[in-house]
Amino acid sequence: MPQGHPEHVPDDGLTTRQRRSQPLVIVHTGPGKGKSTTAFGLALRAWTQGWPIGVFQFVKSAKWRVGEENALRTLGASGQGGTVAWHKMGEGWSWIQRHPEDHAAQAAEGWAQISRDLAAQTYRLYVLDEFTYPIKWGWVDVQEVISVLRDRPGRQHVVITGRDAHPDLVDHADLVTEMTKVKHPMDRGQKGQKGIEW
Amino acid sequence: MPQGHPEHVPDDGLTTRQRRSQPLVIVHTGPGKGKSTTAFGLALRAWTQGWPIGVFQFVKSAKWRVGEENALRTLGASGQGGTVAWHKMGEGWSWIQRHPEDHAAQAAEGWAQISRDLAAQTYRLYVLDEFTYPIKWGWVDVQEVISVLRDRPGRQHVVITGRDAHPDLVDHADLVTEMTKVKHPMDRGQKGQKGIEW
Repeated sequence: MPQGHPEHVPDDGLTTRQRRSQPLVIVHTGPGKGKSTTAFGLALRAWTQGWPIGVFQFVKSAKWRVGEENALRTLGASGQGGTVAWHKMGEGWSWIQRHPEDHAAQAAEGWAQISRDLAAQTYRLYVLDEFTYPIKWGWVDVQEVISVLRDRPGRQHVVITGRDAHPDLVDHADLVTEMTKVKHPMDRGQKGQKGIEW
Repeated sequence: MPQGHPEHVPDDGLTTRQRRSQPLVIVHTGPGKGKSTTAFGLALRAWTQGWPIGVFQFVKSAKWRVGEENALRTLGASGQGGTVAWHKMGEGWSWIQRHPEDHAAQAAEGWAQISRDLAAQTYRLYVLDEFTYPIKWGWVDVQEVISVLRDRPGRQHVVITGRDAHPDLVDHADLVTEMTKVKHPMDRGQKGQKGIEW
């Protein structure tokens, strides 16, 4: 991909250098594959930059993303690049003592921690995996999410993945990509397989 | 994402176990971001499985994907997981002595090596980054590509990225995802930035 040439230079008083370090809200949505995989691929770049990375998985099962988790934890522990903190709702968030079987409460606890981390600038890249769903289901208020994202200090990038991203979140985001399924082996009865699906 | 439930079970005489280890041709295309990033995210899973991974970058410049390359090379050298071989057309393929300034010839040399590697089952996962372009430009014949992919031995997965994937390639592929740009910061004059774009 050639380096980006903006269609116009905005009259915002920013230098090119400033425009090169704008904190971004990135949304990967749509019915196709690759929403989360792209986010973890993006984390490879952040790791190379030496950035602290925080992953928050808003999924019930800890079965998935084992490949990405294993690889990113290995990178985080390599002594090179950035650090990697990996938080899983499916196993109960590590900062919560009790593990209620109330997914709505768990999701709210996850978002509360992210809000604290954003205020404290704990990470430089946040991967909020499958975070569109707790918003969709009303477990986390989209207006509060947008408010916290808008007011976050510093240069923290936030990537949110999942289908059916809320329109207000799409509207607020800086970069939105929709993954569209063109053809999938499960359509013809193929099973998911290791190394590809997890 | 829940584990896949096929819409129907095909009458192909295969067991579930066999259907779980079908070699796949995967295409990431479309105008949106994430085509290559998803492929490198997929490589994290392959690495965790201990698979040998071969990356072939069909791009002129070696500037891009530095984050992914650095991270995957670090993983490949970690002594855990799979190995990673990273080949760049932009620097002249490592197996070619002379470096002609003829991109068509370089692309053909790249594809010839991939064909040899597929025949020899050198890797378990191949990432052919931006390989849609040499096909589009007629530097590599799409029918020959499909023929080699169809006849490849063993259980080798091949991921091909880039815009404008040839319709015959899409037709042959097992899994095709199109990335659609919904919103991009460059639309409003934002510059690409480290950690995000490379």
